[in-house]
Amino acid sequence: MVRRALAIDVGGTKIYNTIVNENGEIVGEIEKRPTPKTFKEIKAVFEDIIKRHENEVDVIAFATCGAVNNNNDGILGSTGNIAQEYPTMDFKSLSNKPVFVENDANAAAWAEHVIGSSKGMPYSVMLTLGTGVGGGIILDNKLYKGKNGAAGEMHFKMRTDKHRKCTCGSFDCFEAYASGTGLKKTAEEISGNSDITTYDVIAGKDNCPMMKKIFDTWQNDILEGIIGLANIFDPDVIVLSGSMAEFVDIDYLEKEANKEIVTTPFRVVKASAGNFSGMIGAALLALGVN
Amino acid sequence: MVRRALAIDVGGTKIYNTIVNENGEIVGEIEKRPTPKTFKEIKAVFEDIIKRHENEVDVIAFATCGAVNNNNDGILGSTGNIAQEYPTMDFKSLSNKPVFVENDANAAAWAEHVIGSSKGMPYSVMLTLGTGVGGGIILDNKLYKGKNGAAGEMHFKMRTDKHRKCTCGSFDCFEAYASGTGLKKTAEEISGNSDITTYDVIAGKDNCPMMKKIFDTWQNDILEGIIGLANIFDPDVIVLSGSMAEFVDIDYLEKEANKEIVTTPFRVVKASAGNFSGMIGAALLALGVN
Repeated sequence: MVRRALAIDVGGTKIYNTIVNENGEIVGEIEKRPTPKTFKEIKAVFEDIIKRHENEVDVIAFATCGAVNNNNDGILGSTGNIAQEYPTMDFKSLSNKPVFVENDANAAAWAEHVIGSSKGMPYSVMLTLGTGVGGGIILDNKLYKGKNGAAGEMHFKMRTDKHRKCTCGSFDCFEAYASGTGLKKTAEEISGNSDITTYDVIAGKDNCPMMKKIFDTWQNDILEGIIGLANIFDPDVIVLSGSMAEFVDIDYLEKEANKEIVTTPFRVVKASAGNFSGMIGAALLALGVN
Repeated sequence: MVRRALAIDVGGTKIYNTIVNENGEIVGEIEKRPTPKTFKEIKAVFEDIIKRHENEVDVIAFATCGAVNNNNDGILGSTGNIAQEYPTMDFKSLSNKPVFVENDANAAAWAEHVIGSSKGMPYSVMLTLGTGVGGGIILDNKLYKGKNGAAGEMHFKMRTDKHRKCTCGSFDCFEAYASGTGLKKTAEEISGNSDITTYDVIAGKDNCPMMKKIFDTWQNDILEGIIGLANIFDPDVIVLSGSMAEFVDIDYLEKEANKEIVTTPFRVVKASAGNFSGMIGAALLALGVN
């Protein structure tokens, strides 16, 4: 009997759910709805999803925004753009089946480790480049969580003169430069035009010198972050995922980063576990698959 | 019977040796000599030290400059200011007793973990602020080495515009700003005076506005690095050691860093295992004490 998890992905704007089996295969419909504004409504969505599907599965697996504790049953602290009371959610109480919770970026990194592009590599760091930047760290084939579960936040500094505000409240974090939002900010700074979009940059980089300069500045910031992580972790691989990872030159990043490090040669690769890797990874973790 | 190690600290300029017992106590003379220029002479020094002391001990423990492999028996790649062939040293062949090798900064971090200021804390990062910056990372009570043993290099970027060359060959690494050499460079940049010394800054910071500005810039760079490491690792503690750690305001760093992180509260403390913590840590690792 192949075990299955009801996987639920909780983001600031959308909630997805599906069924994932222990082989990391999606074996249910992908359902999607907007994330409600209030704690009560979010809880009602969870209850509805679980009520309809819990009899089909062995466990319930959440991949959620926010840092998740080391018991995998609750959220640590605040989580940005979701109802303020969300961190008080009592996930265990939502079902009589086992409920397992992990941070979405951590879960996605685990999916890559088990079935994706870092498979077979004990030491990996995944960077999810989207509107923000998510991080997931796998060391010696285990998800690295730190003392309380909050590790893997890619908020290390790219400069030290308090130049660009980060969503975290501090300044000049990797997220504020390497993300899609970061690309737009870099574009605004270089072009002096606040209407410029990331699309303008991506579409224009091969023909327009200014767009190329903006793109290269953004990609160089990603490169510099990768170099730092490789020197800190001596990893097998750094995996890039997320919508913005589509645009980077992965071979260039690997080649240039390996020239600059003092640790040992490593790979830079794109993620391959797909758009629903958060749900897949949470399911695999919940089912104890490694 | 309390077990003992012959501990040998190999730096670019000095070689120290002593005897350390399994309690982390120094129980022998501290001997010191200049590091010879050639591989052959360095090996002769090792042979002489071992010949004189190996009968008094259970194991030989090296704390050395350079990255050390995961078998703890050899050096990975080049090591900067020591004989170029040094990484080819066959440490195991130096004695019939067990020989154990670890990077000096890693060994020092282990000493803090076992008998020093990070004792009882499973997750710690140690920064040794001297002429350069050494790093040692302890995760879940184990020394973190990465895929090949080279992890813990504090060469993450403080800016991304290739402003200041680092000893590693790349630009703008934490080491190039947070070290004593970094303080001198910062002083030169701010004062426009290439004769300025770190002593001038330390001696003048409480009275001279320019010296204060230089010192604050240097200390802020250390702070920014600490914030990044705390967000990546969610550690219990970041330990500062080395000659330059004497001058930082540890309470200020702890307070300010905890305001900026997205992970959970952590301590910033000074190392307490003393100047010979590299030898103590290597001895404890070699004796299997944790």
